[in-house]
Amino acid sequence: MRREGQEGDDGGRITREGDTTPELLAPGRAGSPAEAATSDTAFLQAMLDAEAALTRAQASLGLAPAEAAQAVTRAARAECFDARELALRARVGGNPVIPLVDELTAAVPEAQAPYVHRGATSQDILDTAAMLVASRALRPVLADLDQTVNFLARLAADHRDTPMPGRTLTQHAVPTTFGLKAAGWRSLVLDARDRLIAVRRSLPAQLGGAAGTLAAFQAYAEADAAALPEPGVRLVGAYARELGLAEPALPWHALRTPLADLAGALTFTTGAVGKIAADSLVLSRTEIGELSEGNGGGSSAMPHKSNPVRSTLIAAAARRAPALAAVVYGCVAAEDERPAGAWHAEWEPLRDLLRVTGGATRDAAELVTNLRVHPARMRQHLDLTGGLIVSERLTAVTTARLGPTRARELLTEAARAARSEGRGMAEILAMEPALEDLDLDSLTDPTRYTGAARTLTDRALTRL
Amino acid sequence: MRREGQEGDDGGRITREGDTTPELLAPGRAGSPAEAATSDTAFLQAMLDAEAALTRAQASLGLAPAEAAQAVTRAARAECFDARELALRARVGGNPVIPLVDELTAAVPEAQAPYVHRGATSQDILDTAAMLVASRALRPVLADLDQTVNFLARLAADHRDTPMPGRTLTQHAVPTTFGLKAAGWRSLVLDARDRLIAVRRSLPAQLGGAAGTLAAFQAYAEADAAALPEPGVRLVGAYARELGLAEPALPWHALRTPLADLAGALTFTTGAVGKIAADSLVLSRTEIGELSEGNGGGSSAMPHKSNPVRSTLIAAAARRAPALAAVVYGCVAAEDERPAGAWHAEWEPLRDLLRVTGGATRDAAELVTNLRVHPARMRQHLDLTGGLIVSERLTAVTTARLGPTRARELLTEAARAARSEGRGMAEILAMEPALEDLDLDSLTDPTRYTGAARTLTDRALTRL
Amino acid sequence: MRREGQEGDDGGRITREGDTTPELLAPGRAGSPAEAATSDTAFLQAMLDAEAALTRAQASLGLAPAEAAQAVTRAARAECFDARELALRARVGGNPVIPLVDELTAAVPEAQAPYVHRGATSQDILDTAAMLVASRALRPVLADLDQTVNFLARLAADHRDTPMPGRTLTQHAVPTTFGLKAAGWRSLVLDARDRLIAVRRSLPAQLGGAAGTLAAFQAYAEADAAALPEPGVRLVGAYARELGLAEPALPWHALRTPLADLAGALTFTTGAVGKIAADSLVLSRTEIGELSEGNGGGSSAMPHKSNPVRSTLIAAAARRAPALAAVVYGCVAAEDERPAGAWHAEWEPLRDLLRVTGGATRDAAELVTNLRVHPARMRQHLDLTGGLIVSERLTAVTTARLGPTRARELLTEAARAARSEGRGMAEILAMEPALEDLDLDSLTDPTRYTGAARTLTDRALTRL
Amino acid sequence: MRREGQEGDDGGRITREGDTTPELLAPGRAGSPAEAATSDTAFLQAMLDAEAALTRAQASLGLAPAEAAQAVTRAARAECFDARELALRARVGGNPVIPLVDELTAAVPEAQAPYVHRGATSQDILDTAAMLVASRALRPVLADLDQTVNFLARLAADHRDTPMPGRTLTQHAVPTTFGLKAAGWRSLVLDARDRLIAVRRSLPAQLGGAAGTLAAFQAYAEADAAALPEPGVRLVGAYARELGLAEPALPWHALRTPLADLAGALTFTTGAVGKIAADSLVLSRTEIGELSEGNGGGSSAMPHKSNPVRSTLIAAAARRAPALAAVVYGCVAAEDERPAGAWHAEWEPLRDLLRVTGGATRDAAELVTNLRVHPARMRQHLDLTGGLIVSERLTAVTTARLGPTRARELLTEAARAARSEGRGMAEILAMEPALEDLDLDSLTDPTRYTGAARTLTDRALTRL
Repeated sequence: MRREGQEGDDGGRITREGDTTPELLAPGRAGSPAEAATSDTAFLQAMLDAEAALTRAQASLGLAPAEAAQAVTRAARAECFDARELALRARVGGNPVIPLVDELTAAVPEAQAPYVHRGATSQDILDTAAMLVASRALRPVLADLDQTVNFLARLAADHRDTPMPGRTLTQHAVPTTFGLKAAGWRSLVLDARDRLIAVRRSLPAQLGGAAGTLAAFQAYAEADAAALPEPGVRLVGAYARELGLAEPALPWHALRTPLADLAGALTFTTGAVGKIAADSLVLSRTEIGELSEGNGGGSSAMPHKSNPVRSTLIAAAARRAPALAAVVYGCVAAEDERPAGAWHAEWEPLRDLLRVTGGATRDAAELVTNLRVHPARMRQHLDLTGGLIVSERLTAVTTARLGPTRARELLTEAARAARSEGRGMAEILAMEPALEDLDLDSLTDPTRYTGAARTLTDRALTRL
Repeated sequence: MRREGQEGDDGGRITREGDTTPELLAPGRAGSPAEAATSDTAFLQAMLDAEAALTRAQASLGLAPAEAAQAVTRAARAECFDARELALRARVGGNPVIPLVDELTAAVPEAQAPYVHRGATSQDILDTAAMLVASRALRPVLADLDQTVNFLARLAADHRDTPMPGRTLTQHAVPTTFGLKAAGWRSLVLDARDRLIAVRRSLPAQLGGAAGTLAAFQAYAEADAAALPEPGVRLVGAYARELGLAEPALPWHALRTPLADLAGALTFTTGAVGKIAADSLVLSRTEIGELSEGNGGGSSAMPHKSNPVRSTLIAAAARRAPALAAVVYGCVAAEDERPAGAWHAEWEPLRDLLRVTGGATRDAAELVTNLRVHPARMRQHLDLTGGLIVSERLTAVTTARLGPTRARELLTEAARAARSEGRGMAEILAMEPALEDLDLDSLTDPTRYTGAARTLTDRALTRL
Repeated sequence: MRREGQEGDDGGRITREGDTTPELLAPGRAGSPAEAATSDTAFLQAMLDAEAALTRAQASLGLAPAEAAQAVTRAARAECFDARELALRARVGGNPVIPLVDELTAAVPEAQAPYVHRGATSQDILDTAAMLVASRALRPVLADLDQTVNFLARLAADHRDTPMPGRTLTQHAVPTTFGLKAAGWRSLVLDARDRLIAVRRSLPAQLGGAAGTLAAFQAYAEADAAALPEPGVRLVGAYARELGLAEPALPWHALRTPLADLAGALTFTTGAVGKIAADSLVLSRTEIGELSEGNGGGSSAMPHKSNPVRSTLIAAAARRAPALAAVVYGCVAAEDERPAGAWHAEWEPLRDLLRVTGGATRDAAELVTNLRVHPARMRQHLDLTGGLIVSERLTAVTTARLGPTRARELLTEAARAARSEGRGMAEILAMEPALEDLDLDSLTDPTRYTGAARTLTDRALTRL
Repeated sequence: MRREGQEGDDGGRITREGDTTPELLAPGRAGSPAEAATSDTAFLQAMLDAEAALTRAQASLGLAPAEAAQAVTRAARAECFDARELALRARVGGNPVIPLVDELTAAVPEAQAPYVHRGATSQDILDTAAMLVASRALRPVLADLDQTVNFLARLAADHRDTPMPGRTLTQHAVPTTFGLKAAGWRSLVLDARDRLIAVRRSLPAQLGGAAGTLAAFQAYAEADAAALPEPGVRLVGAYARELGLAEPALPWHALRTPLADLAGALTFTTGAVGKIAADSLVLSRTEIGELSEGNGGGSSAMPHKSNPVRSTLIAAAARRAPALAAVVYGCVAAEDERPAGAWHAEWEPLRDLLRVTGGATRDAAELVTNLRVHPARMRQHLDLTGGLIVSERLTAVTTARLGPTRARELLTEAARAARSEGRGMAEILAMEPALEDLDLDSLTDPTRYTGAARTLTDRALTRL
């Protein structure tokens, strides 16, 4: 039953070999690109990328020899390090950068060893790595959102005139269209996408040295008699450019805006696709059946059952993300130049958020791509209340005719009769002389009472 | 001991009379402008403002008589309604708009009664009111943040050259300056302010009718033979303009981006000022005393004690906000055109977030305005480790001289001696022949090892 | 529209006069006993009760004159104090006990003034008050749970043989009974009740003095030459007895087990009634209609609509409670003998939890008491899948007859045919010769496939 | 740099081979027993244990042949299955039991295949496995807590007379002892231990079949003509006995008390050890130095620095656990016989809670075992306020002598003088004639003002 380790891929750098993230309890994210992009190997590579960029940036400013930059870059390959051993050794100092620097130093020629991690602090590397990982993990998330947006646009356009019951507090309210519902979903996903893109663009590199003053870079420059003014400040810019991350105005060891922004955008995204899932779960209930998942999953006990599995997994993700985000937000208020605990508490929730979101957006793309819409069931349900679903319209018409008091009496009585006798509102109201010139069949036709649904749908679809 | 109800004020509209928000357990927000701006009276007034704006907007489009607009506007005064009675009657239908519409209808001349709340749903009014309340409550929050930013700029400038220990994981790391710390605080507060301003600008009006199709507005227009094309869609624009809120592309009854954005920005803001409080609490400890609150609070048991009360209350707020935001984020994933529970679950957490944040920003402004800085204590602490606080610099210098192996041996031994014998590093290292031409007093002077602190501070202060 | 303040009641002590808790956004708790029991007035009275009990306990041990005990007890009436003024004055020291002690001291004869709050710290009074308030607020909560349990027992017994579809992942699975569902609800509510009763019984008084050493009580005893050994320790016992609270082994200013236990039991309770609401919301959907709320609420836009309002409000509560509990749990990890922030952060979440839970349990009692069950709809839905709902049973029977491979083929084909042709499984399977002696009508009768539902229901109902 | 996979161990069954849980970001739990006990392999083994127990229980009641029980038990070894492949295949149906049953069925002789998973639903196996995993993971947690309790008892006893400043709101309040502090920590850890033991004892097996009616077990018994009355109900008991878990009164697929109880006890435990960490972090600050971690960790930038790493990692855990528990509590309110999402959302937070708690308790045991106490620093700090730390006692004495008004004047003036002139209170007060017969040196000796600290410590240590 065993098989060989699969090759994963992240720009050709990260392999899955031996990197078996536990996922038995995580069908939502199992095998997803976001999971691979946030694995231990991926974080390890990102830390190494940060170290290599640091030495290269120093070399570019004359603060280190070119040979050092080359040597560190050559050695900075995750497959040459043992993540588990680093994890265990991380217990001593409380973070994995300390043992990693030891190993990386040992992996370069002795002459270049002094230039490894020179002047930096662990947090410089770990924070930068987190930003790199976030940036990389967001790539497939954004691709999934784009696919979702595109299929939702198609669904909205295809069903711009497909009427269905609008439901509020679980009860039929007035008719709406599936097109408007899909356009609403799309607008929410676009909101998520826009927020993620903005956050991704502003992800900053981290470089501050021991307590955020960049002093060590200056000390080394002086010791080496390098004549560069403000070497630390210049280095931050060069380092950020090497990494393709934004240059921060200040070291942000204890100014956690980037983390908070990420947490907010990620949890919102999970909520956005969670809205689609919540609706799909309702609409695919056995009694409702207006939607069904194209590839519903089976059951261990009932082989004939088709479950809305994608929606279920998205719904599970949406229950989890806000609590993870709350931990990250809670770590903004933290003491000192580097807090004892608040920093460490961010790492796993951020990774989990990226995974939970990455799983949910993958499932949302699958859900939407394969979603089956059943307009006939929608149409059929519009008649379930015998015309009460258009009572709002009848109120408008009868009030204009009869005044509010008489209109209310008439409709209340008609509704009672409709419920108890199972007759339609049109039939009952036709007996009222004052309404006899009205086209009651048309007025009580739920498919003709969808208001501005089409206009709103079309307008929403113009948003790109 | 009793006294008369005080007059509060929010643009002259909201009075406190009889509006005694419980605050005995809430010294953080008691009496704050944000609290007044989120009281029952304030929400009631905002709901009435929404109703009046709706009728005025309809009148402006010819969908209602001008008299109706005037009558509703005249009647829409919170002081004419009993919030508690409305609250109790809200239990029947699950929201306060239902009884409020009854009351408001009764409060206008009979001829105008049909134009009250015409075509709208409860959520149109309640969501719009929440946006109005948020907008109003954010005004004093932003003013507090501005004040905080200004005082922090002054502190940063005044102390750009005040050295103090940089602390990481509770231990002295390398020197920094209080200027850089204050500049960092300011940058975090600016991040919060920018996010709140952006969110506040985009707060949308809500108008969708029963299930978000705007159908009723069309139905009434038809019944009244008004010849306006797309009356619902036009009405949304007119309504938003009346209210000074943004016009939404779609009704957002079940598309909760505005709530999520608010929650994120508010909890981040509380975290941002929470960072200042966390640092102040550490730095005002009896043993540290580098900062003290200008007006520290007393104790019931120890009259001579001066507690950092403002920081304490901000810290409490920062512990609470993320969980409140998590509830709001969690309500994004919700079923139907109006969910049964997820909508209702937002109301109090949003109000609490506005209050918790409004209290924390007020306390932050007071804290920062009165903060006392004790540079002598900071200076004194720089010597606490006998020079170990500059060991990083000594590493750079000795490594350049002696190579990494010998440098490490020398410094490890010197550090051991410094700790056990209580001597300074300069004195110990002076005994090493290879270092004898160095100006060790200068190299071990912690006040001369603040790196780029001044440059970073100055650069950060250019941000407006 | 205004009316006079109502009299609330908590053992005759607490009146609502002027105590208008904001509740316009809180129909779930508006007017509930738990709300009254947690109002500012209620907290104020509980603090005064704690102060009076302290002086009486001191008097009982000879540490204060009997006159002082009488004077403080006489003065300790909430209606003589202005909660709002105390709230505003609480800002100075960060808690309301400091100004309250001033006021209470001023309210007793000068000779007794020294015995007010003697030796205590603010937290002694506020923590004790919180325990008193919790104990008082739990009384109506437990009464509501008892009522809920009783009505659920009746529902379970009445419907022990009412078959309905069992639903998993939104799809029909196998039949169950409404009796078993109601018995399950009841078992969950009993779990909640048992946990609340256990927590309520162990709520401790708080008394430790400034830093939990009880030193001041000893200092005063010595200064007064009272010859009582260990006066502080004895006083804790006497004080707890006066209050009817448990005597703690240690002052728990910074050992927050009681708060955590309360938070856990309260949030679980909200979840337990939330389960009932979640099911009711599903089962009262327009398309399902197996349950309906006896007194469903209206809508502002659609007068004929009947919403499941009680379930909706409970569902909203269930979304909020866990986040409130998380804040309280998070405050267990806190520094010092009294933390700066973690203590203060507990107050409002605990109050909110009591309110949210108290509202939800009141609504649950109302929901269950008035719940209407529609067995005909349940029966009708059992046929919706044309027999697939008993496919599990058919698998057992056909596998025994035909072996697993043939059985699976046969049933898969039959299920396909049932779905596409709209025929029943019994009819389709009757064509299979190997099954012709089976009573297929009986085997496919969903009402005869409820397994141990009756036995489980009866057994569950034996739990008291 | 790579090394070979290590052997982990859980009762000899679970090996680490290929089970590299990502832990690079998790130094708190890396390599901990709780981590191994919650790995994918561990969950896989627990699911297999549940399957094997089910078949054995059926065999014990005559519902399956003994050969089937033996075959399933033989095949139920995690090392024969590929967790990652199962995880990926779990995506189809949304849980890993579905593919596992396929694999397990294929792994037994064909004749026994029908008895694999017979009559059960996926949730029966997954819930049972979660309970087994929780039970196994709690074993080392409880051992760590026992060790922590024992070392804290020793610390409390050793330091029952070691005075130190009691601190409230970050400021010195009155003296306390380190013994009382340690005894308080111990009492909190005992509270946690007691709650975990109670929860662990009540962890129930799960068995209900497709929708909790146990119908399939009856169907198979009938099909096989087994004459056992109520086979399902009996089977639950036999199954629970096989597993060493409690027998539930009802299937609890949708009655989540066991999960909620676990979540509450685990998050409380993390809070309890988090309290120790919070205090240790304060007391090991450079300026305070009353405690230090025996094996503090280094820094990548400052080799001479010794960080309180154990406390830091515990503090990080304490920030995370409440949010994880909130998710689990939030899943109690869920629809149907098995909810679509709420069930799935529990899995990872429960695992994370076990890991976070297991890491924190391991770190707590290490922290406490190696904690170094520095009584001289404590003693020295008692003098920092020049006697103000005993101002409470002086208030008692002077009030008895001079009356409250004069006493307050005198002490306020003395405090002012003490602060500004740096003199001690004893010296200042000695100039007051009315106090001249007092032994002011003794009265102002902070080591003689520890109240009942010793009595409370001794009493607390009697708790086992």
